[in-house]
Amino acid sequence: MRLIDQTVLPHRLSHLHVQDVDALVDAIQRLVVRGAPALGVAGAFGVAIAMLQAEREGWDDATRDAAIDRIRNARPTAVNLAAGVDRVRPLVPKGLDVVVAEARELLEEDLRGNRAIGRHGADWILARTPDRPLRVLTHCNAGALATAGWGTALGVVRELYARGRIELVYADETRPLLQGSRLTAWELRQEGIPCLVQADGAAPGTILRGLVDAAVVGADRIAANGDTANKVGTVSVALACAEAGIPFVVAAPWSTVDLDTASGADIPIEERAPEEILAWNGVRAAPDGARAFNPAFDVTPARLISALVTETGVLEISAGATPDRAFPR
Amino acid sequence: MRLIDQTVLPHRLSHLHVQDVDALVDAIQRLVVRGAPALGVAGAFGVAIAMLQAEREGWDDATRDAAIDRIRNARPTAVNLAAGVDRVRPLVPKGLDVVVAEARELLEEDLRGNRAIGRHGADWILARTPDRPLRVLTHCNAGALATAGWGTALGVVRELYARGRIELVYADETRPLLQGSRLTAWELRQEGIPCLVQADGAAPGTILRGLVDAAVVGADRIAANGDTANKVGTVSVALACAEAGIPFVVAAPWSTVDLDTASGADIPIEERAPEEILAWNGVRAAPDGARAFNPAFDVTPARLISALVTETGVLEISAGATPDRAFPR
Repeated sequence: MRLIDQTVLPHRLSHLHVQDVDALVDAIQRLVVRGAPALGVAGAFGVAIAMLQAEREGWDDATRDAAIDRIRNARPTAVNLAAGVDRVRPLVPKGLDVVVAEARELLEEDLRGNRAIGRHGADWILARTPDRPLRVLTHCNAGALATAGWGTALGVVRELYARGRIELVYADETRPLLQGSRLTAWELRQEGIPCLVQADGAAPGTILRGLVDAAVVGADRIAANGDTANKVGTVSVALACAEAGIPFVVAAPWSTVDLDTASGADIPIEERAPEEILAWNGVRAAPDGARAFNPAFDVTPARLISALVTETGVLEISAGATPDRAFPR
Repeated sequence: MRLIDQTVLPHRLSHLHVQDVDALVDAIQRLVVRGAPALGVAGAFGVAIAMLQAEREGWDDATRDAAIDRIRNARPTAVNLAAGVDRVRPLVPKGLDVVVAEARELLEEDLRGNRAIGRHGADWILARTPDRPLRVLTHCNAGALATAGWGTALGVVRELYARGRIELVYADETRPLLQGSRLTAWELRQEGIPCLVQADGAAPGTILRGLVDAAVVGADRIAANGDTANKVGTVSVALACAEAGIPFVVAAPWSTVDLDTASGADIPIEERAPEEILAWNGVRAAPDGARAFNPAFDVTPARLISALVTETGVLEISAGATPDRAFPR
């Protein structure tokens, strides 16, 4: 598997060639590959990698299955990683070609789905915002890098831009790993879309000052009641949008919805190493001996989410169109 | 004037000897000295520095007065800097000793006031929180370094700790200049107060998960209607506290209240260099050519502020006890 190494962007565009399960799990945990939809695709191809390694190294089925489980559980919050693994896993007895074909199909579906998310999201936002180019805020990176190649939240932005309706994108830098500053700013520059990077703490003030028309973010897991886990800091954007009365939009493939998770309280929140907070890129800020709290995600309550945009359409969550009501079991 | 150089903390405790106006203005703008009350004291002593330099270099009165104005206007948002200058300035004709004595008196008042803020704040918080050691969240640094030597928000924390009522302090790291990670974590370690540093974006999630009993922050300017400018990111803490139903407390000397400023919309918000955002602690994050938006402060609306604690007592702002109503002209 050939992965863009997202840890060294934007300064270098280099690829990591992954040939075994240990390397893939490490790449997932170090965020070489990240973003819920991209993790889903990586998980699906990861099953093929485990099959190849099993053949090469003479593993029995139990060893291979344990390796697949390690990929599936490499990160706990995003539901897509496990879903990507689970989708192709039943095909393992049919052989490598069938598994790879299904993983490829997942990738193609993700791309097609992203384009549909972009169209639905742009339509919905344009119907509810002033008739001029818009100032849109986003948090973290839900772009081509986070997906199979187009983007969810940034897919909506790209669609709006293609329609001549983007004035400016505010990109929250997204501490601790600065995906906004490093990845979103880089992607937007590739597309020529005007962008201002800001501190995460600046987002609510920027919104309350009337400088933003709508916020669009991705998601790592959406509970049945609409509560949404996304990169830490997302809920501050949602709170400010509610206070300012502007749309807060979650853009994600339907596979991010987990109807088995009743509410946000049931979503496991990954805690990452304190060093990500106490330093960045090897440069330490905090005093020796300082401790840190580093949750990688937060949960935005459903009532703060104006719309969930998926490839199948738009659910107006805060108006009561939650996944469990829209798709009762 | 001997200033702790806050730009190199926590890794080095070194002092800057300031002997002329250019060096003082530079120190204020680079945040060698920062924090609204500390800026007030630095402004007052700065007048004495201008007088000494005027004598040494044979300035006429107009040159000296222009130099004093440069100190007064070195940063636009905090009202205390201008107030500190304005307090001693009328004494210039009476000579250096009188000016220095008044600046010293301001320093002593600030220290006494901070102690009183600590007591009032601790009393108010303890009357409204569970009967056990508390988990308190703070943003930026409103400690000894930001004042004449005790602290406003951290003065309340220190008082609570002295009463055995602190379990843990969450210190937001406070991008872009990391005053929380560098300065607050350092001060709390000096005092032995347990502390977890977290990303600014984590604060609302931590609050909404029920991990915080109260938030206490400082202020750079408080308008007559109670709207409060403080370090960028503060309003996200206030929004989350309102959502969670826990106290959001502003602790500041009464001199931070500016009855001439009607509301938050009238407070000038300093915008600082984009480079502070595009890099982290000197290490570049964003791609070449990226642009940034870097407001140093945000405004928390009065309705989100449970209490304003000053040396004279507590105003319950969100309940309507705003400065202009409490002290009508």
